[in-house]
Amino acid sequence: MKPTNVRLRDDGRAVVIQDQTVLPSQTLFLELETPETMHEAIHALRVRGAPAIGIMAAYSYAVMANRSEEKDADSLLESLSSFADYLNSSRPTAVNLSWALARMEKVAAEHAGDSVDQIKKALTAEATLIQEEDVSMCRRIAAHGLTLIKDGDGILTHCNTGPLATSLYGTAVGPIFLAKEKGWDLKVFADETRPLLQGARLTSYELDQAGIDVTLICDNMAATVMSKGWVQACFVGCDRVAANGDVANKIGTNGVAILAKHYGIPFYVLGPTSTIDFDCKSGEEIEIELRDPEEIKSKWYAEPMAPASVKCYNPAFDVTNHDLIAGIVTEHGVLRAPYTESIAALKKTIESEA
Amino acid sequence: MKPTNVRLRDDGRAVVIQDQTVLPSQTLFLELETPETMHEAIHALRVRGAPAIGIMAAYSYAVMANRSEEKDADSLLESLSSFADYLNSSRPTAVNLSWALARMEKVAAEHAGDSVDQIKKALTAEATLIQEEDVSMCRRIAAHGLTLIKDGDGILTHCNTGPLATSLYGTAVGPIFLAKEKGWDLKVFADETRPLLQGARLTSYELDQAGIDVTLICDNMAATVMSKGWVQACFVGCDRVAANGDVANKIGTNGVAILAKHYGIPFYVLGPTSTIDFDCKSGEEIEIELRDPEEIKSKWYAEPMAPASVKCYNPAFDVTNHDLIAGIVTEHGVLRAPYTESIAALKKTIESEA
Repeated sequence: MKPTNVRLRDDGRAVVIQDQTVLPSQTLFLELETPETMHEAIHALRVRGAPAIGIMAAYSYAVMANRSEEKDADSLLESLSSFADYLNSSRPTAVNLSWALARMEKVAAEHAGDSVDQIKKALTAEATLIQEEDVSMCRRIAAHGLTLIKDGDGILTHCNTGPLATSLYGTAVGPIFLAKEKGWDLKVFADETRPLLQGARLTSYELDQAGIDVTLICDNMAATVMSKGWVQACFVGCDRVAANGDVANKIGTNGVAILAKHYGIPFYVLGPTSTIDFDCKSGEEIEIELRDPEEIKSKWYAEPMAPASVKCYNPAFDVTNHDLIAGIVTEHGVLRAPYTESIAALKKTIESEA
Repeated sequence: MKPTNVRLRDDGRAVVIQDQTVLPSQTLFLELETPETMHEAIHALRVRGAPAIGIMAAYSYAVMANRSEEKDADSLLESLSSFADYLNSSRPTAVNLSWALARMEKVAAEHAGDSVDQIKKALTAEATLIQEEDVSMCRRIAAHGLTLIKDGDGILTHCNTGPLATSLYGTAVGPIFLAKEKGWDLKVFADETRPLLQGARLTSYELDQAGIDVTLICDNMAATVMSKGWVQACFVGCDRVAANGDVANKIGTNGVAILAKHYGIPFYVLGPTSTIDFDCKSGEEIEIELRDPEEIKSKWYAEPMAPASVKCYNPAFDVTNHDLIAGIVTEHGVLRAPYTESIAALKKTIESEA
């Protein structure tokens, strides 16, 4: 089984993505061959989910190398570097975007003395490796997450963190897919996740496709579902984790964490180590992207749902304080509070493995 | 200035309502002359807001009397009683509906020995009185609520509790309208209130029309707005208040209350005494209406936002525990914890006034 959400076209001259903005009504694949279409695909959330964005950025970098007509290595590297800067500007909050591009830049630099053809081959190999690593990583995250729940549990999740957002398995819903393989009966509640409705359009679609018991709710129904004792754990993804355990994730995540704390339900964040920003001291340092008010007022609707003169505040992410988080699950295991210590220890482990 | 959202037509043979389901794009008034259209108007939320429903039910009762061709009082009262049972079934959670109908039934019974014409006149007078009392009550609620905030404050509100939901001033936003009259600059955040978007369609419309600084947010952004220190008080309405201070109100209210507690922001419930159900011991006794899943999946949208096979849980209300509530504001003043005592004392005051 291979990932279908993001892949390199066989000739290496296009990134093929499934356009997530037209789900669940349409299955549409786009072949991206230019910097502009790649930038637009990230900015317009056609490809979304931190890991998927990283993979897509790496393939995009390789595609731009493969399509380049530069004859010498220096010129090629220079043009790729400009491209990386450009693509990096498509979503400021996504650390995986800059992480993947930096990794591609590093490989390019390491091959600066090689032929143009050798550089292109090395970059294609590196991008492919990034995706393979992600598949393997998601499996490991899912396995660690599975230790936190049991057969029969109710799980609440927010936004979309499934195979569409990563490669296979996903992050926050990975344990749910693994549980399904084991024959467990979980009852999943998916927040619809306004304003872009990723929970309705993507998560409920993915889980339902996999035969998992999923109930869609509006974001403001999470407290009711928790109050009834239907939720034993919350699983959410992350766009960026600070060194103190603060987590930037899709808008609404922080609210879910506060409600979970109120009802004594453990709230877990799941994601690959690449989303941890060891240089970011706390959530206060994380820049939050403000998006178009029309996403709230008029997107999706036949006619606007608020008068044109009314202003909106539309942050794409929020920051969940580390003290609301029962555990941060990475491919290396479950990090527990105090996070400043457990994250620092993880950093050492990674550095010693590198 | 007279209420326009619900009124008796001059000939007394129709209730005229502003259809709230077509706002903010259309201003549409409906003249209701039959039990079926009256029932549908309440059930389909064309008229909504606890006080407005009560007023509308009372006028409907008077209209059915005025249109009746029964020649003797007994037959008239019998047919009106059947009508009251029927209209009462349109929304089980709305205590104002049964309260207003019971009050009309009582007046009808008191005039059982009178002529049919006298009964009709008495019922029209009673329904008109119910509305006049509501206007006066809203003014008093607003004045008490105003004592809880100060110039420059940020106020978060949920759902719609404005003039459309009541008569004039509204309940939870009454203090905001009064503050505007005093020249205060408040900054109001209106939750859009999924799935029916009353906050976007109605509250942002009403506040904006009145020249009040209003910012529309998605329900899942309330925690962010609170975390930034932009909110000094939450004002919400109520559909039913139990004798222990538990409050049933629009879905999402409980979540706002939990977030407010987390951030140390006082959470106030505002409503007329008629929404207090003294016979209801606690929120556990309140039946919560479950509504059509399509309100979440497909209503408003050009195409469904979740696969047809995905189920939804769509409660119309939730119950906020009394321990999350800083005060319950009625026309008699601000009730404080312990609510079992303050509500019992209010009951005595009302009984002694009656």
